Amino acid sequence: MISLEALAGAAQPGTLYGIGVGPGDVRYMTLRAAGLTASVDVIAYFCKRGARGNARSIADPLIGTGREEIRLEYPVTEEIPADDPAYASRISAFYAEASARLAGILREGHSIGLLAEGDPFFYGSCMHMWRRLAADFPVEIVPGVTGMSGCWTRANIPITWGDDILCVLTGTLPEAELTRRLKDTDAAVIMKVGRHLPKVRRAIEAAGLLPRALYVERGTMPDERIMPLGECPADRGPYFSIVMVPGQGRAL
Amino acid sequence: MISLEALAGAAQPGTLYGIGVGPGDVRYMTLRAAGLTASVDVIAYFCKRGARGNARSIADPLIGTGREEIRLEYPVTEEIPADDPAYASRISAFYAEASARLAGILREGHSIGLLAEGDPFFYGSCMHMWRRLAADFPVEIVPGVTGMSGCWTRANIPITWGDDILCVLTGTLPEAELTRRLKDTDAAVIMKVGRHLPKVRRAIEAAGLLPRALYVERGTMPDERIMPLGECPADRGPYFSIVMVPGQGRAL
Repeated sequence: MISLEALAGAAQPGTLYGIGVGPGDVRYMTLRAAGLTASVDVIAYFCKRGARGNARSIADPLIGTGREEIRLEYPVTEEIPADDPAYASRISAFYAEASARLAGILREGHSIGLLAEGDPFFYGSCMHMWRRLAADFPVEIVPGVTGMSGCWTRANIPITWGDDILCVLTGTLPEAELTRRLKDTDAAVIMKVGRHLPKVRRAIEAAGLLPRALYVERGTMPDERIMPLGECPADRGPYFSIVMVPGQGRAL
Repeated sequence: MISLEALAGAAQPGTLYGIGVGPGDVRYMTLRAAGLTASVDVIAYFCKRGARGNARSIADPLIGTGREEIRLEYPVTEEIPADDPAYASRISAFYAEASARLAGILREGHSIGLLAEGDPFFYGSCMHMWRRLAADFPVEIVPGVTGMSGCWTRANIPITWGDDILCVLTGTLPEAELTRRLKDTDAAVIMKVGRHLPKVRRAIEAAGLLPRALYVERGTMPDERIMPLGECPADRGPYFSIVMVPGQGRAL
């Protein structure tokens, strides 16, 4: 039988890898993600100023010591609302600068592993680098287990059965819009709950879904919290929190 | 640094593992899934009569020779429509029998790895065993990279940006219902396309989404096919085919 290391493979020079590190537990990284994380010349990741970075923390057991690392620190996170033009221009300038920095490293022939929470092409910041660099450099995206998969697995409840429709929403949507969409789906996941938790709870309640709704915080991580949404005392969730309404389709 | 084998861990006696094997490429199995697949006493999987089984094929490099395997062969697949009561009763009896068979093995103290394509709690058959056995035996579900993540990764296109809403639909829905929902979302994935491909194409067209829609067949597998839906000549897709409409949210 082939060893896991052999299956996972190693990084190629001058290549950007967008590595999905999964929902939190390092064991839910894929073989490919693990092999690349262990072998790229440079580890890169987005993080808040002063914080370690969630993706970096998840992959920690595979990184070891003495590796070259690049922290890409967001100039703003929640200080400016995401729909404010000032937010867009600051973040856009930051992404341009970050991609120029990565391009310099790739041009020297080094490989980069850009760590991304969950799955890179599902609400990932990683896409903003992919968009700027994929025309000029070899880029490989490694899919990952999404945060929401980690959450419904740990909550021990299937999200969709049979022909259930699943709607993935974000807590940033207006309350009436959330309610309307929640009323019109079999199953739902609400991402980016954060400070929108009270609004999300009202929308869930208005849609008559409170008895079925679950709140999951930091699913698959050591400090995860899982509870019925109706019993959640918090007024805001951390970055890694979701609300979900599991489907009830054909349980044959 | 810790070896991948050590991180992945091994199976415990008398435990049922619902193992998500990911979208197709064995390298997209998680470390945990790989460690359990290699170490369980018995490998089990659902399959069509006479076929090898997709999950079994995906995990093949990790199974090796001389392992005990249990094939759980569906008595019917598409011969009877899924909404026919005859389908429900045949499948339900089959699941009852399959779970009794697995229970016998668990009761003897052996561990079982029930392989599931993609993520077990996302439209997986595995849930029907979990539902019947989790009260009486230790059960661990291992999340996996979904088939749809594998597809959008290989199509090289992010599915959701920023606050995009994603709707996951099934090709079994009525055409008008598909059209209505496609008109009212930022991004969409249509699962279970199969023989519904012509209907799905009409719904996509009616929603004005044909220029953005992609058809992906067997994504991440050696024989994958990816093309604009408008150029897809087929009248039906295989089991592993999806249609997707990527979101166009904030590309900062």
